[in-house]
This record gives sequence, structure tokens and C-alpha cells, in this order.
Amino acid sequence: MASALELLQQHYDSMPPVAVMGLSIEGYAGHRLTLRAPLDRHVNDKGCAFGGSLASLMTLAGWGLVWLELEAAGLEADIYVADSHLRYLAPLYDDLRVTASAAEGADWSGFADQLRTRGRARIELVARVPLPDGRIATDFSGRYVAIARPVAGAGHAG
Amino acid sequence: MASALELLQQHYDSMPPVAVMGLSIEGYAGHRLTLRAPLDRHVNDKGCAFGGSLASLMTLAGWGLVWLELEAAGLEADIYVADSHLRYLAPLYDDLRVTASAAEGADWSGFADQLRTRGRARIELVARVPLPDGRIATDFSGRYVAIARPVAGAGHAG
Repeated sequence: MASALELLQQHYDSMPPVAVMGLSIEGYAGHRLTLRAPLDRHVNDKGCAFGGSLASLMTLAGWGLVWLELEAAGLEADIYVADSHLRYLAPLYDDLRVTASAAEGADWSGFADQLRTRGRARIELVARVPLPDGRIATDFSGRYVAIARPVAGAGHAG
Repeated sequence: MASALELLQQHYDSMPPVAVMGLSIEGYAGHRLTLRAPLDRHVNDKGCAFGGSLASLMTLAGWGLVWLELEAAGLEADIYVADSHLRYLAPLYDDLRVTASAAEGADWSGFADQLRTRGRARIELVARVPLPDGRIATDFSGRYVAIARPVAGAGHAG
């Protein structure tokens, strides 16, 4: 699994807005992806984590989780976030740590099957940023769309 | 008005995650604030604007609008985003430009009155990022909370 995580880290770092975030992959197991970023790069005027940084990190955790699940299924696709809903429940005065997973009822094998057969699939994810005491700082739900990349040689005119 | 916008730009630039965004204030008139940021700092793996950057910029536009409205009302407060909902409707292959305004039914004078009398107030805002052809790339709605700063000498023990 190490090489998929290394590839994902390279993917993240290749995007200019992500390269400046100081993001690292903490772990990926049981269909859950955890990312971290240091508070000092994401601090706002009140000394806590900036809401936009939390939104970015949660969006990226969902994106990376979809990428890893498709990689494990042997699929390649462009992955887009379609919508997201964030609730900022408590200020975070510590490093940012987010864990993303499928929403209740969402199904990775159905998602991969749909991408294979229709060339396009959608899945709902959730993500949470905990406070050091275990309460939730921010929670996120979002839908992601994967669009299969045309296979070389399989194209048609039009 | 120039000096309030200069102060807001300084506020933005004082936050490390915002300083790297290349954000500039395009204008503020009629209770609407418009921000810009160059695509090259916010581009993703597909050559279009990164969803997290759009989320950050929209969150900041709402925050800045609340700050300007409170400044105009002679009020100082800590401003937090409480929740947000984003819809990514079309990819944007151009510079990012976002305009924030009050949501339908939201009322700036009621917001300021509530902050004065209760020390805390909440308002719902909307923001939109247009495509070059005028369609919408991304839309946002979010609620912001302002908490009045204790005035020096007016504190009490407890």
C-alpha cells in the first residue's frame, strides 16, 4: 500500500494550492484516510484554524480517499467534488487532522461497478476534524463524482 | 472607504494561509464584496480551479463582508463562519472571482442591532463564482457569527 500513498502524496504536492499547505498522509486503513497539516500554516486572526483551510483539507481528504479506492480497484478517473456541507462546531487551536470515510449507506464496490459500466459514478463521503479532547471541531459531508478517463485507442470521433 | 478596504486587505494578508493565496479586493459597493485570486496559485490536477481554494475564497469573501459591514456600523467583533454549503456546478479555467452578499431576508441593520444589544449576532450570506461567460462555476451559502469584543475596562470577574 505504501506506493499508492506515495503516489497520492505526489498528486497532492503537484497542485500549487496544496503544495503550500504542509499536508501529510497519516494513514489509510479500513476505507478511511487521515491527513494532517500544521496549525502554523493555517492559523487565522484569532489564533485558531482558518475555516477555509479546514474546508480545503476536508475536500482533499475526500478526494484522496476516492483516488485510493479507485486505485485499489484498478480504475483511473478524474475526480471532482460536486457539493459539500461544513459545520464549524468548535475552534481548533492545534494541528489539523482530518479523517474521511464513506457516508452511511455509500458503497465502494457499487461505486466502482458504476464507474466501470457507465463511465461515471458518484459517492457521498463524510469527514471530521477532531479536537485534542476527542470532540468534533468541524464536520463535512460531500458528494464526489468520478469520470472514467478515455482509454488510449478506444476513442471515437465526436 | 479606501481605508476600510486597505485594513481588510491587511487583515487577510496577516493570516498565513491567506497570504499565499494572492487574494485582492476588487470592490465593495451596495453591501457586496468582490475578491479575486489568480488561477495559477489555485490550479488542480485537471488544470481548473481547486475546490478547496474556491471554498477558502468564498469563506473569506463572506468573512470580509461581515467585517466591512461591522466597520461601517462602528462595531468590532470576532467573526466566525458557523456553517457553509457549496455547490460546484462547472469547472473554472480562469482566475477566481467571488462576490458575496447577504442572503435573501438577511438584514445588516438587524444584525448590527443584535450585536449591540446581545453581544452576539448571526447572519446568512451567499457568494458566487462566475464563469467567464456569466454562468455560475460555484455557489455558496454560509452562516457567520459575530461575537463582540469585550471593551477594555468593562470586564467583570467570571
